[in-house]
Amino acid sequence: MSNGDIFVGEVIGTAILILFGAGVCAAVTLHHSKARAAGWVVIAFGWGFGVLAGAYTAAPLSGGHLNPAVTVGIAVDTGKWDKVPLYILGQLVGAVIGALLAWLTYYAQFRANADKETAVPTLGIFSTAPEIRSPVANLVTEIIATAGLVLPILAFGKNAGIGIGPVAGAGAGVYGSGISVLLVSLLVVGIGLSLGGPTGYAINPARDLGPRLVHALLPIPNKGTSDWGYSWIPVVGPLVGGLLAGVVFNAAF
Amino acid sequence: MSNGDIFVGEVIGTAILILFGAGVCAAVTLHHSKARAAGWVVIAFGWGFGVLAGAYTAAPLSGGHLNPAVTVGIAVDTGKWDKVPLYILGQLVGAVIGALLAWLTYYAQFRANADKETAVPTLGIFSTAPEIRSPVANLVTEIIATAGLVLPILAFGKNAGIGIGPVAGAGAGVYGSGISVLLVSLLVVGIGLSLGGPTGYAINPARDLGPRLVHALLPIPNKGTSDWGYSWIPVVGPLVGGLLAGVVFNAAF
Amino acid sequence: MSNGDIFVGEVIGTAILILFGAGVCAAVTLHHSKARAAGWVVIAFGWGFGVLAGAYTAAPLSGGHLNPAVTVGIAVDTGKWDKVPLYILGQLVGAVIGALLAWLTYYAQFRANADKETAVPTLGIFSTAPEIRSPVANLVTEIIATAGLVLPILAFGKNAGIGIGPVAGAGAGVYGSGISVLLVSLLVVGIGLSLGGPTGYAINPARDLGPRLVHALLPIPNKGTSDWGYSWIPVVGPLVGGLLAGVVFNAAF
Amino acid sequence: MSNGDIFVGEVIGTAILILFGAGVCAAVTLHHSKARAAGWVVIAFGWGFGVLAGAYTAAPLSGGHLNPAVTVGIAVDTGKWDKVPLYILGQLVGAVIGALLAWLTYYAQFRANADKETAVPTLGIFSTAPEIRSPVANLVTEIIATAGLVLPILAFGKNAGIGIGPVAGAGAGVYGSGISVLLVSLLVVGIGLSLGGPTGYAINPARDLGPRLVHALLPIPNKGTSDWGYSWIPVVGPLVGGLLAGVVFNAAF
Repeated sequence: MSNGDIFVGEVIGTAILILFGAGVCAAVTLHHSKARAAGWVVIAFGWGFGVLAGAYTAAPLSGGHLNPAVTVGIAVDTGKWDKVPLYILGQLVGAVIGALLAWLTYYAQFRANADKETAVPTLGIFSTAPEIRSPVANLVTEIIATAGLVLPILAFGKNAGIGIGPVAGAGAGVYGSGISVLLVSLLVVGIGLSLGGPTGYAINPARDLGPRLVHALLPIPNKGTSDWGYSWIPVVGPLVGGLLAGVVFNAAF
Repeated sequence: MSNGDIFVGEVIGTAILILFGAGVCAAVTLHHSKARAAGWVVIAFGWGFGVLAGAYTAAPLSGGHLNPAVTVGIAVDTGKWDKVPLYILGQLVGAVIGALLAWLTYYAQFRANADKETAVPTLGIFSTAPEIRSPVANLVTEIIATAGLVLPILAFGKNAGIGIGPVAGAGAGVYGSGISVLLVSLLVVGIGLSLGGPTGYAINPARDLGPRLVHALLPIPNKGTSDWGYSWIPVVGPLVGGLLAGVVFNAAF
Repeated sequence: MSNGDIFVGEVIGTAILILFGAGVCAAVTLHHSKARAAGWVVIAFGWGFGVLAGAYTAAPLSGGHLNPAVTVGIAVDTGKWDKVPLYILGQLVGAVIGALLAWLTYYAQFRANADKETAVPTLGIFSTAPEIRSPVANLVTEIIATAGLVLPILAFGKNAGIGIGPVAGAGAGVYGSGISVLLVSLLVVGIGLSLGGPTGYAINPARDLGPRLVHALLPIPNKGTSDWGYSWIPVVGPLVGGLLAGVVFNAAF
Repeated sequence: MSNGDIFVGEVIGTAILILFGAGVCAAVTLHHSKARAAGWVVIAFGWGFGVLAGAYTAAPLSGGHLNPAVTVGIAVDTGKWDKVPLYILGQLVGAVIGALLAWLTYYAQFRANADKETAVPTLGIFSTAPEIRSPVANLVTEIIATAGLVLPILAFGKNAGIGIGPVAGAGAGVYGSGISVLLVSLLVVGIGLSLGGPTGYAINPARDLGPRLVHALLPIPNKGTSDWGYSWIPVVGPLVGGLLAGVVFNAAF
């Protein structure tokens, strides 16, 4: 994988992921959306199938990490850290682009949020927020949820017959073909359903930081706070969770 | 693939897709349906599994495009445009047949719509309509949502190990076997959940235009307007989205 | 496949299918069930994953038809009719056993239905009933819905790379391994979501007739009518639908 | 598979399963959870995808049983009982760890349960309880539901082409790679939807006993009873169900 392929793959893949993810949050949050108030199952499957769309698209180019916590977990496993900054940069750029695309997709709905009577807070469409603000508890939640994502992803690579292996024309990737991305996408659905209750499962620093930046900059009516005071938790928690998963994986396998 | 196989495949496949898709919209919309008001998750999965049913059926004959936007995106990628009109013709004929079958399936429910007290508007069973009427915003939504469909479909073909390849006895198709159609069907579920809020995600000109024609012609009680003023958006938007996806794909891969 | 294997496979597989299918109807219908009123999506996925459980179990023995309409559709395609009665007999016996198992699973809930104040009608747990009673319309619905099941199943066999083929140690079956049964189970979910609204989608004569017999015979408190007047429609409709699918398949492929 | 690999695999895999499973029950039960009251479909998919996460992780080490009833069913089939205690020990240890992790994930929510006004009973997050307390009926429900899990799992191994076979680097396992674990996870979703209504589908002695112990020991505010009087049913029922499935499987296949 060339550096250009990695960067382009992570940008496109993460943009698609966030387009779907921020999209589904807009879909259930904003007025004048056909999916308004459609419930938690819609959010969890929306994010999961965003992984499916983004990671299969990125896989032939970059392996389709789309998440600094995954990149870090893989680096702990393989011992190769040199491409990590490139991956994370691509993921952040992609997350920003994806948030912009989601905003464009729901442009008329965001504009309609100008009506003060019915306006809803919009940060939850872009980034996560805890139900109970408690830094240590929120951090622990993000660490466990992310480890619950990255450890299975690493273990998938040890299973024969699920199609993991060198991606055609792109060199070896940890995952990126066969049914492995499908499994990861259902895993992400599961994490949302099971572990998303307390903090909204960032489990991905780029997924939270990039869209938060977009929220801060975009001229959305009645957009509410961008809550930068909380923003370090969905960055630090997932990175620690990814590291931890890599360490446990190396010890167990 | 012979011209006859392509036409028959696209007719049958698109008919099945629209039977399921218009069917699920009837199921949640009409009175005296066991699925009435069953929610957005039902609509999204109903359309997605309609793709699964229709595209696996069509795949051995035509590759199973079922969507002019997909056909156009593939043509941009491959540079081969000569079969495009044939595909689109088959898709339109299939969409008309599928809408008729869905109407027959829910015939007693449509007939019961004659009761003015409880009658519901029926266009939404056949075709899409925006929640907020705003041509530019609606067009942008359809362009982005369709690009979010076609770009991953094209990229799926670059993934090793998901079973994409020449369809047995039918020559090479871009997709049409292995788990690829399953992935596309889950992708369509995801697009519905995430990007369907503003316009109801036509993302397919045949899916919208064919059933709209059927709605205009059928003698449905209290059927309401066929809203031809909006009808160009779910045609133009998806075609532009498919073109755009093909261009981005060619640039990135 | 020996006659004994076919019979045992269809009995076990259909029993599992009906255990899950009648089970999910009991789950959402009866009082004192944790899934009470859980909605249409639960019913559709419950039946679909019943197909997954039953057909993968039966596949190595009998190919896993579990449905006379599927058996008839396959016979039209292959021209081999001699095993059809054996398949159907196994399916009916299995359906009776499955309904008994579902009743045992929900025994305490059925017993609690003795409370006249809260008693619910129980036929819907076992067999289908139309929302609007209209023999011709109901028949048409069952014919179309069943053709929408059987035509894709037959077409799945033409797709390379989804694992359809001779089942190890059991001779050739139309489906029964690879991802094909998974696809059929998701197809059944889709039919439920999309086409189940008017009649509750029998799409399988054994699925309706066997459990109706059990309903008629079991001593369930306040069980209500077994509605034998309607019982011919979910038998004739699916058989015609399966035949039709076989004919269309042979013409198109 | 070395004894160490088996133990570590079952501990890690079962811990992940219970983290997701107890997690989703916390998600829908506790106040200040984004998934509160999200319904039965969320619970069923949450547990199912917990199986996906845990069993694919454990598969390369231990085959990924994660359930004494599965281990017993396999032992009946293969006639090899010597590793059974090791498997069950690992499963119990893993279940305890998983319950602790779920408690940590929802720590702030459990702490907020100190408010007597809104406090909810918490045992249902950890272990199962019947809707109608009736030992014989509850036992029968658990036996049938578990047999409905273990018989298909055993039969999956007879299907060609779903990727079951010797796990790379780990010797032969009954399942553990290919799409087989995905199928088992969807099967578990189906059991939850269809057969979980009366007792909450323990179908796994370790899944119920381990977390019940954790519930009894943890200092959760307003935690309510640990209901030890019921605790033997979700142990005995699943073990009998697994045994029965093994016997039926050996007779039929």
